[in-house]
Amino acid sequence: MSFRARHLLGIDHLKPDEITELLDLAQDYAALNRRTVKHSDALAGMTLINMFFENSTRTQASFELAGKRLGADVMNMAVSQSSVKKGETLIDTALTLNAMQPDLLVVRHPQSGAVNLLAEKVNCAVINAGDGRHEHPTQALLDALTIRRAKGRLHRLTIAICGDIAHSRVARSNLILLGKMENRIRLIGPATLMPAGVGDMGVELYEDMREGLKGVDVVMMLRLQKERMDGGFIPSEREYFHRFGLDAEKLALAAPDAIVMHPGPMNRGVEIDGTLADDINRSVIQDQVEMGVAVRMAALDLLARNLRASRGRTAVGEP
Amino acid sequence: MSFRARHLLGIDHLKPDEITELLDLAQDYAALNRRTVKHSDALAGMTLINMFFENSTRTQASFELAGKRLGADVMNMAVSQSSVKKGETLIDTALTLNAMQPDLLVVRHPQSGAVNLLAEKVNCAVINAGDGRHEHPTQALLDALTIRRAKGRLHRLTIAICGDIAHSRVARSNLILLGKMENRIRLIGPATLMPAGVGDMGVELYEDMREGLKGVDVVMMLRLQKERMDGGFIPSEREYFHRFGLDAEKLALAAPDAIVMHPGPMNRGVEIDGTLADDINRSVIQDQVEMGVAVRMAALDLLARNLRASRGRTAVGEP
Amino acid sequence: MSFRARHLLGIDHLKPDEITELLDLAQDYAALNRRTVKHSDALAGMTLINMFFENSTRTQASFELAGKRLGADVMNMAVSQSSVKKGETLIDTALTLNAMQPDLLVVRHPQSGAVNLLAEKVNCAVINAGDGRHEHPTQALLDALTIRRAKGRLHRLTIAICGDIAHSRVARSNLILLGKMENRIRLIGPATLMPAGVGDMGVELYEDMREGLKGVDVVMMLRLQKERMDGGFIPSEREYFHRFGLDAEKLALAAPDAIVMHPGPMNRGVEIDGTLADDINRSVIQDQVEMGVAVRMAALDLLARNLRASRGRTAVGEP
Repeated sequence: MSFRARHLLGIDHLKPDEITELLDLAQDYAALNRRTVKHSDALAGMTLINMFFENSTRTQASFELAGKRLGADVMNMAVSQSSVKKGETLIDTALTLNAMQPDLLVVRHPQSGAVNLLAEKVNCAVINAGDGRHEHPTQALLDALTIRRAKGRLHRLTIAICGDIAHSRVARSNLILLGKMENRIRLIGPATLMPAGVGDMGVELYEDMREGLKGVDVVMMLRLQKERMDGGFIPSEREYFHRFGLDAEKLALAAPDAIVMHPGPMNRGVEIDGTLADDINRSVIQDQVEMGVAVRMAALDLLARNLRASRGRTAVGEP
Repeated sequence: MSFRARHLLGIDHLKPDEITELLDLAQDYAALNRRTVKHSDALAGMTLINMFFENSTRTQASFELAGKRLGADVMNMAVSQSSVKKGETLIDTALTLNAMQPDLLVVRHPQSGAVNLLAEKVNCAVINAGDGRHEHPTQALLDALTIRRAKGRLHRLTIAICGDIAHSRVARSNLILLGKMENRIRLIGPATLMPAGVGDMGVELYEDMREGLKGVDVVMMLRLQKERMDGGFIPSEREYFHRFGLDAEKLALAAPDAIVMHPGPMNRGVEIDGTLADDINRSVIQDQVEMGVAVRMAALDLLARNLRASRGRTAVGEP
Repeated sequence: MSFRARHLLGIDHLKPDEITELLDLAQDYAALNRRTVKHSDALAGMTLINMFFENSTRTQASFELAGKRLGADVMNMAVSQSSVKKGETLIDTALTLNAMQPDLLVVRHPQSGAVNLLAEKVNCAVINAGDGRHEHPTQALLDALTIRRAKGRLHRLTIAICGDIAHSRVARSNLILLGKMENRIRLIGPATLMPAGVGDMGVELYEDMREGLKGVDVVMMLRLQKERMDGGFIPSEREYFHRFGLDAEKLALAAPDAIVMHPGPMNRGVEIDGTLADDINRSVIQDQVEMGVAVRMAALDLLARNLRASRGRTAVGEP
């Protein structure tokens, strides 16, 4: 077993063989999820707490189903942002939950780094379900599995990540993961939505989407994160779609078998044409959601194995 | 087995022997629910998602308990109406959930027909938990079981449905079900609250409650749906109670052993006198709630059986 | 078995040997909760409903985990206060839930006595999770277990309860429990925050915190319940901390091994100094949270045993 981490806080700390191990296990869970009886006992008797300081129906649902299908006792905690104004309170909340002895804690937080801080304070395994502009590792892993299933491999592909790169933890985690697996990455977007210093990361930058899409194998669209833009460039939706939205005409410039991805929820007609999003010959957007549950099951399972090993109790009378 | 439907979208599509089969199974679950250990494995390993686009604490709770008592993994999704303004978004939400591979999806939606539309887009079995003014099949089924238990039969009864018929999916589903089972139905209410064309459905119409209640076996009161009245007749509560509210004096005109029903939540002193509602010699309102869980367990169980049969995997290595 | 109660509505009705039996069982569950597989079948097949008419994330979470770890089907009902304006509606809600046949009902309500009233109307076992200024029995029991584990006994201790006594059901339940177990109790706080008639209860009253803390074994701080103060004395937070907040300097007057408690959530810098609250050599605040889950598991288990015995069905074909 390669995957030895205690927490899953980001892609940054994972080695390629750890990523591969996790995706292989997720592939098995994807097969299980297609059955009518979709249940395993991997987390039986363990407690999983979903702790979302930022609202996200779909990611929370995905983790909730993943935990339940693995047999865990799952509890959701919707922590309103209004009651969490200071870092101190985050830690108080974390310590309180920790004292209830969860084995696995899934955390989403609006501030970059908050989940890492929290992980230092607790005894359980922590999964980062998105923190500020920092990382969203399970999203990058589910994207990777979706690509691997569609293209048959996860290396030597040319992948375009398009749109609001600067505000996107999804882009950041994907950039790291796809780079580790030796792919060629292009970032496409207005210069004002590019993160500082990204030019040094071995990626190619494009402001012209038609240029950037030429011959790519994968087109990964991003959600326009208006809520995270503080001042600066805010394009009109119509202008944005014209320049950076994906439609059939722009997609025709990519490789003939290029796939289209979007992390959801989509702004149809802003980042992506609605008809294209629903075209099951090109769009793998529903597959991404499906792989999301499978990847989270794999991550929970691997972290639980490491937790059991580190506690060293499996052999001494654990019921 | 008679019940072969893939979905339970309305009473309209059910044949009398399907209704009887479902009620017979619900009768067994009603007995199970009176035990301390009230659990079956009928849905073990399957995923049930409750997706309520309209708030309803009691119906959602009833489905949640039904699913859990059958051993399913149950997830509630409260979808706020504000985030669902277009039909397009309903479908996006449905497709996203579908990709998480639920086996059973329970849906309530404020628009008539929305649940049927959604059922066409997903791979799982769908139960309509109420859509606009259209249907609310499990309510009609729980009412039927309650009547059958109280009166010993579900045919050749005279049943009065009283109040705001026009806005009520409960009335509509009951009208269809009780008609199929060969009962005599009277609708009582102000002409302004009668649906158009109902005179052709073989029912008797009354504007005078005292006339309409004469000799009936069952008095089924409805909730005043003020939130669904767009303009038109809105009576004062006091005037409404005087003319159409049920009290002991009006009930004295019905058969001596007539039972009193209400789908809840009640407006005491508007549709029904509070003391009468609590009179366990006449009111079966609590029985309706109890039968609600049992009927939903039966519906979930039968749909799951059909789902397994249609997937054809039970014999080929399904764990 | 000593514990024969049908409900757990308050500490007032418990005898010392019932308290001891419950704490002994909770001690076993505390050990179970430290394992990775933290599951029992004590409530398998039974239904637990959490019914909170007043918001409380941590208490509800504690009961939810307790029920799930015992194998119950757990359902949370957040009943907004806006929809519950009359006592009548409380009873309607209770009767509706009762008809869904829960075995155990956990209730929090803003009005003193509401939970007792509700318990008379239902067929299941009821746990009071806090009602107005009346009682909060599981809080007193978890405090008792925390003290017993830290001090090695639960009698002949000198315990100071400090702060807003008048508005605190936590103080009230603790006062009753610690008195029954033959401890010496001091109440410390401004005269305006002392309940009427408390001078007759065999406790010592102090307005000067430095006087009151001298030599005590346990310092139990309370949360300032501003939301329950209707007019009357409202101190500034700064003045309150100066006179009645706990810091290292005041704590130095207590016994050298005195422990510090707080029911949470804390107002740091108001009732207690933040550094002291986090000092694991003195503060047992996290232990209180941990014992909370264990005590609730014990209470649920004992009530379920009594429920089974009273229903007399365990021997006659209970599956």
